[in-house]
Amino acid sequence: MPVRDAEATRRRLLAAATADFAAHGIAGARVDRIAAEAGVNKALLYSHFGDKLGLFDAVFRMNADAVVEATPFTAEDLPDYAVRLYDAAIARPELIRLATWARLERVTPGGLVMDEAASDAKLRAIAEAQRTGFITPAMEPRDVLALVIAMALTWSCASLSYAAAPGDPEADHERRRRALSTAVSGAFRP
Amino acid sequence: MPVRDAEATRRRLLAAATADFAAHGIAGARVDRIAAEAGVNKALLYSHFGDKLGLFDAVFRMNADAVVEATPFTAEDLPDYAVRLYDAAIARPELIRLATWARLERVTPGGLVMDEAASDAKLRAIAEAQRTGFITPAMEPRDVLALVIAMALTWSCASLSYAAAPGDPEADHERRRRALSTAVSGAFRP
Repeated sequence: MPVRDAEATRRRLLAAATADFAAHGIAGARVDRIAAEAGVNKALLYSHFGDKLGLFDAVFRMNADAVVEATPFTAEDLPDYAVRLYDAAIARPELIRLATWARLERVTPGGLVMDEAASDAKLRAIAEAQRTGFITPAMEPRDVLALVIAMALTWSCASLSYAAAPGDPEADHERRRRALSTAVSGAFRP
Repeated sequence: MPVRDAEATRRRLLAAATADFAAHGIAGARVDRIAAEAGVNKALLYSHFGDKLGLFDAVFRMNADAVVEATPFTAEDLPDYAVRLYDAAIARPELIRLATWARLERVTPGGLVMDEAASDAKLRAIAEAQRTGFITPAMEPRDVLALVIAMALTWSCASLSYAAAPGDPEADHERRRRALSTAVSGAFRP
C-alpha cells in the first residue's frame, strides 16, 4: 500500500478508536466496531497496532500528545497554565475519559503518564521556578505538578464533584477560571 | 424471613456488590457473580434492590455515606478537612472507584453527589466561613468545595497523575499531606 494510504488508514483507525475507547473503555471497546467504523478490515487493524491494547496505547498517546502540545507548561505562571489546562480538558473530554478508563481498568498504583520525558521537563521547570522565587520551595516538584493538574481538572468530565460541559454558559466557565486562577495563585505562592 | 436475617442478607449482598462494582464498573459487574459470592439467590437480590442499577445506587450510597460520616466537614479549617479526605480516599479506594465508574458510565455533565442535603450543608458552612474571615470571599462556595475535594483527591486511585496506595511508605503519605495542607491553606486564604 502506498505510504500516503497507510497513513490515512492509520488516521481513520485512530479516530474511530478514540471515539469507541472514550465511550466504552478498554474492556467495553470492540475492535470489530472500530474497524467497521473506520472502513478498514480487522487484519489490517491488527497489522497496524498489534492488538486491542496496542491500539488503546496508540490512541491514548495521540490524544495526550495533542493536549500537551496545545497546553505548553509555564512553571513561572502556574495560574495561567491551570486555566489553559481547564480549557483543554473541557475541549477534549475524550483524553480525560481515556486516561480515566486506563486508571480504572489497569488498576496499578503509581504514575499514569506515558511520556516520562515531558513529565521530567515539567519537574525541572518547577524546580527552577522554585529557585527563582515563583513557586514555594515548601513542596516537592512532583507534588506541585500533581496538585496543579488536579486543580485544573476539578470540573473535568471525570470530576467527582461537578462536570462542566463545553456548552455551559460562558459566564460559568469564566467564574471557574477566575476561582482556579485565584486558588492556584495562592496554593503555590512562595 | 426474620428481620435480622433479611438485614444480614442485605449486608452480604452489599459487601459482594461493592467489590464487584468497584473492580468491574456498572457494565462489567455481574449480578450472578454477586449473588453467588454473597450466597444468596438471584431472585432475593432482585427483591431487595430491584435491578442492577438499583443495587449499584445502594452500594454507592452506602460507601459514600461511610466516608462522609468518617470525614466531618470543617469549613473553618479546610486544610485539615483536605488531609482527612486524603486519608479517607486512600483507605477506601472502592468509593473513589465506584464514583469514577458512575461518572464514566453514566456520562452526564453536572453534579455527581447523591446526597444533596449534605452538599447544601457544606455550601452553607463555606458561606459562613467566608463571612467570618476563614475563607476568601473571592470564590463561590460551590467552587471552593469542588476545588478542595479535587485537591484532596490529587493522589487517589483514580488520579490522572499519581495514584497513592495504602502501603506506600508513611514518609510519602506525610509528604503529600504536608503539601496538600500548605496548598489548601494558600488557595482559600482571605
